[in-house]
Amino acid sequence: MCEANAYLLKNEKEELLMERVDRVVPQNGEIYLESIWGQRKTIAARIKELNLVDHRIILEPTQEGSI
Amino acid sequence: MCEANAYLLKNEKEELLMERVDRVVPQNGEIYLESIWGQRKTIAARIKELNLVDHRIILEPTQEGSI
Repeated sequence: MCEANAYLLKNEKEELLMERVDRVVPQNGEIYLESIWGQRKTIAARIKELNLVDHRIILEPTQEGSI
Repeated sequence: MCEANAYLLKNEKEELLMERVDRVVPQNGEIYLESIWGQRKTIAARIKELNLVDHRIILEPTQEGSI
């Protein structure tokens, strides 16, 4: 399977936000994530980088202190 | 391998932009793409949706008529 793990970059550290993410949809300044198990999450963040071969999605918060 | 193909949405049609994309980095309103073969491309677009299980990255142009 080719899903990836989503990490949120906080204070220069990566926190695991969701495992096995299938869908990523930026909308209204937020990021909607959906895992292969149907778990859903929307977070005030933007995509910083994707590394698909490494199965990594790196997000960074758009509003400091809001998460 | 878990790279994906990048498509650009133009006139509601998806045009294949780059195959086997490994890295995707949004920067300065553009998207930098890098394939597993080292091919690089920067395009004035934003990420519309990722479907990782289907190996699809959908981009849409940010400036009409500029591409």
